[in-house]
Amino acid sequence: MRPSKRQPNELRPLTLTAGFSRNAEGSCLIQCGNTHVLCTATIEAGVPSFLKNTGKGWVTAEYGMLPRSTNSRVPREAAKGKQSGRTQEIQRLIGRSLRSVVDLKLLGERQITIDCDVIEADGGTRTAAITGAYVALHHAVNYLLRTGAIKQSPIIGQVAAISCGVYKNTPVLDLDYDEDSAATMDANFVLTEDGRIIEIQCTAEENPVEEAQFSALFALAKAGIKELSAAQKKAMES
Amino acid sequence: MRPSKRQPNELRPLTLTAGFSRNAEGSCLIQCGNTHVLCTATIEAGVPSFLKNTGKGWVTAEYGMLPRSTNSRVPREAAKGKQSGRTQEIQRLIGRSLRSVVDLKLLGERQITIDCDVIEADGGTRTAAITGAYVALHHAVNYLLRTGAIKQSPIIGQVAAISCGVYKNTPVLDLDYDEDSAATMDANFVLTEDGRIIEIQCTAEENPVEEAQFSALFALAKAGIKELSAAQKKAMES
Amino acid sequence: MRPSKRQPNELRPLTLTAGFSRNAEGSCLIQCGNTHVLCTATIEAGVPSFLKNTGKGWVTAEYGMLPRSTNSRVPREAAKGKQSGRTQEIQRLIGRSLRSVVDLKLLGERQITIDCDVIEADGGTRTAAITGAYVALHHAVNYLLRTGAIKQSPIIGQVAAISCGVYKNTPVLDLDYDEDSAATMDANFVLTEDGRIIEIQCTAEENPVEEAQFSALFALAKAGIKELSAAQKKAMES
Amino acid sequence: MRPSKRQPNELRPLTLTAGFSRNAEGSCLIQCGNTHVLCTATIEAGVPSFLKNTGKGWVTAEYGMLPRSTNSRVPREAAKGKQSGRTQEIQRLIGRSLRSVVDLKLLGERQITIDCDVIEADGGTRTAAITGAYVALHHAVNYLLRTGAIKQSPIIGQVAAISCGVYKNTPVLDLDYDEDSAATMDANFVLTEDGRIIEIQCTAEENPVEEAQFSALFALAKAGIKELSAAQKKAMES
Amino acid sequence: MRPSKRQPNELRPLTLTAGFSRNAEGSCLIQCGNTHVLCTATIEAGVPSFLKNTGKGWVTAEYGMLPRSTNSRVPREAAKGKQSGRTQEIQRLIGRSLRSVVDLKLLGERQITIDCDVIEADGGTRTAAITGAYVALHHAVNYLLRTGAIKQSPIIGQVAAISCGVYKNTPVLDLDYDEDSAATMDANFVLTEDGRIIEIQCTAEENPVEEAQFSALFALAKAGIKELSAAQKKAMES
Amino acid sequence: MRPSKRQPNELRPLTLTAGFSRNAEGSCLIQCGNTHVLCTATIEAGVPSFLKNTGKGWVTAEYGMLPRSTNSRVPREAAKGKQSGRTQEIQRLIGRSLRSVVDLKLLGERQITIDCDVIEADGGTRTAAITGAYVALHHAVNYLLRTGAIKQSPIIGQVAAISCGVYKNTPVLDLDYDEDSAATMDANFVLTEDGRIIEIQCTAEENPVEEAQFSALFALAKAGIKELSAAQKKAMES
Repeated sequence: MRPSKRQPNELRPLTLTAGFSRNAEGSCLIQCGNTHVLCTATIEAGVPSFLKNTGKGWVTAEYGMLPRSTNSRVPREAAKGKQSGRTQEIQRLIGRSLRSVVDLKLLGERQITIDCDVIEADGGTRTAAITGAYVALHHAVNYLLRTGAIKQSPIIGQVAAISCGVYKNTPVLDLDYDEDSAATMDANFVLTEDGRIIEIQCTAEENPVEEAQFSALFALAKAGIKELSAAQKKAMES
Repeated sequence: MRPSKRQPNELRPLTLTAGFSRNAEGSCLIQCGNTHVLCTATIEAGVPSFLKNTGKGWVTAEYGMLPRSTNSRVPREAAKGKQSGRTQEIQRLIGRSLRSVVDLKLLGERQITIDCDVIEADGGTRTAAITGAYVALHHAVNYLLRTGAIKQSPIIGQVAAISCGVYKNTPVLDLDYDEDSAATMDANFVLTEDGRIIEIQCTAEENPVEEAQFSALFALAKAGIKELSAAQKKAMES
Repeated sequence: MRPSKRQPNELRPLTLTAGFSRNAEGSCLIQCGNTHVLCTATIEAGVPSFLKNTGKGWVTAEYGMLPRSTNSRVPREAAKGKQSGRTQEIQRLIGRSLRSVVDLKLLGERQITIDCDVIEADGGTRTAAITGAYVALHHAVNYLLRTGAIKQSPIIGQVAAISCGVYKNTPVLDLDYDEDSAATMDANFVLTEDGRIIEIQCTAEENPVEEAQFSALFALAKAGIKELSAAQKKAMES
Repeated sequence: MRPSKRQPNELRPLTLTAGFSRNAEGSCLIQCGNTHVLCTATIEAGVPSFLKNTGKGWVTAEYGMLPRSTNSRVPREAAKGKQSGRTQEIQRLIGRSLRSVVDLKLLGERQITIDCDVIEADGGTRTAAITGAYVALHHAVNYLLRTGAIKQSPIIGQVAAISCGVYKNTPVLDLDYDEDSAATMDANFVLTEDGRIIEIQCTAEENPVEEAQFSALFALAKAGIKELSAAQKKAMES
Repeated sequence: MRPSKRQPNELRPLTLTAGFSRNAEGSCLIQCGNTHVLCTATIEAGVPSFLKNTGKGWVTAEYGMLPRSTNSRVPREAAKGKQSGRTQEIQRLIGRSLRSVVDLKLLGERQITIDCDVIEADGGTRTAAITGAYVALHHAVNYLLRTGAIKQSPIIGQVAAISCGVYKNTPVLDLDYDEDSAATMDANFVLTEDGRIIEIQCTAEENPVEEAQFSALFALAKAGIKELSAAQKKAMES
Repeated sequence: MRPSKRQPNELRPLTLTAGFSRNAEGSCLIQCGNTHVLCTATIEAGVPSFLKNTGKGWVTAEYGMLPRSTNSRVPREAAKGKQSGRTQEIQRLIGRSLRSVVDLKLLGERQITIDCDVIEADGGTRTAAITGAYVALHHAVNYLLRTGAIKQSPIIGQVAAISCGVYKNTPVLDLDYDEDSAATMDANFVLTEDGRIIEIQCTAEENPVEEAQFSALFALAKAGIKELSAAQKKAMES
């Protein structure tokens, strides 16, 4: 029995609010149960130096948690003077995931930065961030199309992400914090809506696990991603 | 005429939502027009070393802006590796303001940290933060009373803050960003509900100004603080 | 009775030595009782990037304390690897105060940096720094005029600063360290010689205070600023 | 055809030299073709604060590259003043991988730090580091057993790691730099000698890829890990 | 001919003012021509962790330059967030030099920190700092003796320092900035009053130089140190 | 008797392996007994800003120790976020020593960076680094000549370095760690093959020492440098 009474293959209640932010060119507030992430997309002229004069654009992401988004307060990274290894790992993952569905040539020499800030955390913040960031990115690209800055959308795929894990010997979908901290295996899947792989990160928490368990998680993820993709579509249409 | 069509002595629409955060011991989302600040209060055992074994507690604050809370993105302080001078100035101000209405002896050897994170910015974030932080602090103190950790509230006053300024030669209350960036004088008042002074910061933007203008701003502020105090009371009762 | 036996409205003995430094384009050693601050003005070609190609110049300030300028040693900020919030607050205040009396267009695309280094500290270092920095700035502008780099002085006002406070229920002028640490209200006034406001910072130390007390401090400050302005004039003439 | 003329399932020439370092309690130089990583294990009394008084030990890793281990020089992280996100990701991965085969209770309250320093880099440095770090760890544990510090080995499994990728549409084992930079999918497998999963990281480089390709890489990895495990065993016996 | 018209073996005019600082336990302002260094000695309970419970004390030094002590402004190290390699080299040298004439056991478990801050720089700041720091140290030790904290002086020798160099093919004593920047060899000697060696640092600026030139510099230094030692004695007596 | 049974004037067994690194334009592994330093030379277009458009090149050095190159682990400087004062002192010394034998005009507007990384440390790492760095530099210059980038070698001298010290009252050559930590005087000599001085650093460890002891060390060093120079020549020919 899951602490949240959910079925093993059941996502948490999901809300995606595109256009949540008044200022950003694109934005989306994603709420997966008690995990709430605000994703904003900023379009800026210019690209990092390694792309100068290539005609290509860049998509990147930054990630942060409000200090008291969690159950006990985590020190503010700005005050500590550096981002943790975990933060850097997550923002690199979000950036890679988004770039895998963007044609950087079509974007042109501009950069889109997606800021993913966790307002409330209850497990699965990195996967929620990817799912929400995709909607914010889409929203920003619409802005570019609407203002005539580009003629053709550089978005060439749809990406979402979900965590799965083995909790009390049962493979379950969309771990919340209680499950996550007790899971013996934890896997994050970043997939396209049709189930192709963009990124898989799978970690055995205490003991190595059998391949079969990994396969079960993968199957759960593919089904979950379908639901998430449908929700993204709805949010993007509104 | 103010850009927002408000009267010179008119506050922006104000909403204070106590208990906004699921995790924190105290919290308040304050929305002053398009300035939205999430204030969370965290209670922790222990005090900074200069207070060890004095029997006194401590109240402190941290402040941050989401990178795209503003019209153009400001770089993330965690990524830059340090907090700006402005950020430090603001969080020191919030902490001082709150401590002026707290009896640290009655608090006992514990620390309350108020995190003030700006979700959307449209001028007046530091004063909104103080007004909201007071509610979050009150909320956290209620938690201490409710759980029996303390018997008597250490809160000995009520504090709120508001900005005023001279905009197109007219003293006006509660500047939004458009007014703030054009004002010739800008003053922040941190007052008790009955108009006593906790902190005044007044800056002539381009040219020195006459004392009479300062007096006009002070009068506006006192009236504004009364309204804010009433709104705080309502939020704290709910 | 003040620890220094001064009258409530009496400044500390004041010496302003313009041209103290052999190397700087402008300089002034200010000694207010036992508070000694060396202010040097450096003129450099070029301006910060936000002013490039605007034809405007810039005036900025930096502040530091020698580690043993104080009664007990404060760690060297260069060794700690960062400037404290207090330091940043003070240097921002000095810079704003000076810019309020400078026509940046007349200065042209050059930057004047005023370094204010506290050699001995006995309260009131930030206000002494402003008063001395104005003389150093004036000294550097004379250098620009003398060398023909500019034809017209960009200095359009005269600024000085002083602290006041409520000490044992009496409003007093020019707090020294003993008074400052016992004051119930502490206010810094940055005014022009004719009493117009450039900046006011007023803080109730433990308890909120009545407006009348603030008014008394303001009156003391205006008289004190007149004396400081006269001393600046003398120093600038020599 | 692979640039190195290897078969798709062929590892690079492998040498593991246990005890390479004169000073460390455990060490191993691993050479996989032109990728050379020196792994040293340091045993220290005490554990990180979150483990104090739990009776448990800790195993952690640090990773670095000599600036000119690569084809063009990478700036020295010590000179830049921080470790890159990539470095932190890798050292966290190495640490997790090792801890998954260690019983921290049996280790007792001591910490083993594995430093993995890349002397020459030609792709696959993180997987080589894991494979070599395991041997260094084993070497250090032998030291603890030999000196009587512990009675029973805390090592409860054997771990190795290998990268695979899709190069010119062919799944291949043990990518070198030329292959890695051209691969359309890149996966790192950290497995036990009997093929159970400790960690999988799989990234599509430009376009999402089919699950079948992932499965092919997994199969290659399992075979490769067997060879690596055998080589580790030999090195540990000598 | 030297720019300053001095003889090759002639020191610059020298003034040592012991007790210059009002706050520090020991202090000395040293003025060697236009090089002015303020040295303050702070006595603090406790020692660095590597000396805890050894009964030994510690003497250490820090060094800094006011940003405009030099002809063109050098950025403030506190603002840059780190001390330069040069600064660290110098403060390590000052500390070692002082410790060589102190019996750390007799000092007891306390630390004396000598802050050497350059007010005006015209070459030879590090050697002036050592010469002045010795007087400040002596001054602080007198304070310990006077207050009865120690019974016997831990100072077991007298140290001074001077720079020499080869300027226009002539070995000269006590280089000023003009000479220093044109010298072909530059040597700093830290000697006891009777000519024994504490530290020698000798650097050929552009081309390697003959041993004979080094010997000539050494001879000059020994004579110069005698003069400096006499001046120190006088300053310490007053 | 020396711990290593060497004669007072006997170097440790020495091996210089030019071309050790596969990637660098120049490299040398120097092994002096158990002190092993890998020196790599990287040639890059461009020079530091102070040399732009002067036609001159630059030679610089960086130095690091693998964390467990020493008997007890030293924390990784990249993880601590800064290089120690000792590291900076050493890399500045190596850079100066190399530049003293290079005609920077003949090098042209390019920079050669010598990375000196200590693989195993047993005393004398800085002097070994200089001796090895010279060979790596020579190796890189040969690359420039061979590829036609320059026509004439900018190397105008040959430099090597050695430490000496007074160990149990006997002046000895080439201190290992055991001797170094017990020596009463420690001197590093950077000399040309014909004995001219590039740099001397001499430090009395506990007590000031007589000039005669310094002279004895100098004599030992000159003989040692001859042997090192011969070994460098052999390594450069191969």
